[in-house]
Amino acid sequence: MNWPAHGANPRYIYKAMNLPLPEKIVDLSANINPLGPPQILKEIWFDLFSDIAEYPDPEAASLRGMIASKEGLEEEMVMVANGGAELIALLGRLFARKKILIIQPTFSEYEQACRANHCDIVYHFLDENWQYSLNELPLNEVEAVFLCNPNNPTGVCFSFEQMLSLAKRCKEHEAYLVIDEAFYDFCKSYRSLVPILQHYANVILLRSMTKMFAIPSLRLGYILADERVIASLKNYKSHWSVNGIAIRAGEACLKEEVFIEETRDYIENERERLFAFFHKEGYEFSPSQTNFYLLRWPDIESQLPLFVYLLRQGIVLRHTMNFPGIEDHWLRVAIKSKAENNQLLAALKGWRK
Amino acid sequence: MNWPAHGANPRYIYKAMNLPLPEKIVDLSANINPLGPPQILKEIWFDLFSDIAEYPDPEAASLRGMIASKEGLEEEMVMVANGGAELIALLGRLFARKKILIIQPTFSEYEQACRANHCDIVYHFLDENWQYSLNELPLNEVEAVFLCNPNNPTGVCFSFEQMLSLAKRCKEHEAYLVIDEAFYDFCKSYRSLVPILQHYANVILLRSMTKMFAIPSLRLGYILADERVIASLKNYKSHWSVNGIAIRAGEACLKEEVFIEETRDYIENERERLFAFFHKEGYEFSPSQTNFYLLRWPDIESQLPLFVYLLRQGIVLRHTMNFPGIEDHWLRVAIKSKAENNQLLAALKGWRK
Repeated sequence: MNWPAHGANPRYIYKAMNLPLPEKIVDLSANINPLGPPQILKEIWFDLFSDIAEYPDPEAASLRGMIASKEGLEEEMVMVANGGAELIALLGRLFARKKILIIQPTFSEYEQACRANHCDIVYHFLDENWQYSLNELPLNEVEAVFLCNPNNPTGVCFSFEQMLSLAKRCKEHEAYLVIDEAFYDFCKSYRSLVPILQHYANVILLRSMTKMFAIPSLRLGYILADERVIASLKNYKSHWSVNGIAIRAGEACLKEEVFIEETRDYIENERERLFAFFHKEGYEFSPSQTNFYLLRWPDIESQLPLFVYLLRQGIVLRHTMNFPGIEDHWLRVAIKSKAENNQLLAALKGWRK
Repeated sequence: MNWPAHGANPRYIYKAMNLPLPEKIVDLSANINPLGPPQILKEIWFDLFSDIAEYPDPEAASLRGMIASKEGLEEEMVMVANGGAELIALLGRLFARKKILIIQPTFSEYEQACRANHCDIVYHFLDENWQYSLNELPLNEVEAVFLCNPNNPTGVCFSFEQMLSLAKRCKEHEAYLVIDEAFYDFCKSYRSLVPILQHYANVILLRSMTKMFAIPSLRLGYILADERVIASLKNYKSHWSVNGIAIRAGEACLKEEVFIEETRDYIENERERLFAFFHKEGYEFSPSQTNFYLLRWPDIESQLPLFVYLLRQGIVLRHTMNFPGIEDHWLRVAIKSKAENNQLLAALKGWRK
């Protein structure tokens, strides 16, 4: 069967599985901030209408300047994009026909973008604790490494020291290191490699603004990297790829520090509550530090029966069929509102087992 | 100097020319419907907010279905995109390293996208009446032809018969024919090649929804072509490239038949009024049938003095430096509101000459 490649748009999974679409759906398949979007967006929404007849600034210069200043980087090291997906597609082009190492299981778009550009792809699998062993990374002839931190789908964070050490090894091997930080701002203690970017022209950081600020409909992301990398990617980017609403919304969201703090607190508390329940009820889960986690019922190898059981109750988790290394042995779950999370818990209590 | 590659975002042209930015600007450099956006968009705008936390449908299935049904085509022959610019970039990839013929002068993105993909590019220039001679088109070894109809920057329409004849010749030479119809809906008597698409797998039609409906900020376009072409382009397209606001706005706009009629009438009347003035005052202009035209003062070869004279009064036309064949010998002007057009006329009266 044809598994949808991503979470969200739940009707596609019901269609693929030939199940009737329930009237009410609890969608835990997309990792979007349940507290968002921030209030400020509602307040400026009507104002945004007055701009729709103007072309967006193809450079998104104002937003780019704000990001550069926030991160302490030159503007030339920042590019705003039409969501993380555009950035990954552009990186695929940059790496065309090269040998690429992907640390798995992880977000499927890296491989998809590299395959579309005839890359030679090798995997390195995380160990049973969802960590990876640096020494084992086979970097010979590899020209770029893709890593997601915190990792999607596990929710596990790699440390600053692990990242720095990997950046060094990649530099020695003349390989790019792409770190997709799409969910970094959900992690309380996350330390990004931003401060070392000036000295590591091989390190490329991807950011998304759609998860934390709950604006996936608008599409918005950015990249932090050496200015030569940015210049190469710009060459492939289509003109005006970032819409004007996203740019204005991004400018407003970037100032929402308190909103981010509140989100982190909420996610942490809720995650602890959920994990305590799973522990008590005998479910296994990944030691996530972010807003989603892996879940499984240990008595069954394939989690398909649990997945279908929940779908029938209108609760949509994310299948893991296209996450190499864990195919179908786990399900990915987003942390959403208390009410939605409680519906999951109630359903899991009823599953036996 | 570094001429901006496109109209719109007028502050870039003032910056490039080292001129002070006036407080009030009349921007005639972007070809956007002066009557838009349609009222319906204002009415649904607040509703659109409620969707921003949802991922857009990556297939834009509902809008695609509406377009297919309106055009009498199978859904597989339609793909919705993040503006015409994304489609052109994707076509560049499809034609990578091939020999491409571009009918000039025309929109600069075709060449830009093909160059980024290492194409071998040849030009065919329009004659002095802004028409082209079919028999002279050098199709040997050419694998794709780019043509804009109505043509940007001239505003001149090629007839259905000319297009059909060209489609046939291209088919004989096993070449794709890309017709960019970004402005087709501004032309009263335009006849598209849509009805013959089923029999011409080599014909690719590009459409924009941002010009007629005055929503360039949102980014929205679509392509009509053989389903194998669509499938190839999909492979290169980044996931969720079309934002959710654009999809919903597009669905609303597609029903706005009366709005389109009113726009055509307004543009035709206004164009006649402007052309009568130019004729009387001795300005030369292209015989446009759409919402923009070429303009020049015949006593000077380079139109730069006129361009700068108008910029100093806050009136921004589009330079033609990057339109091969007419570089700087003409200026492109959008038809905007009566008040804005009158400001242009008043300034042109004052220019002498």
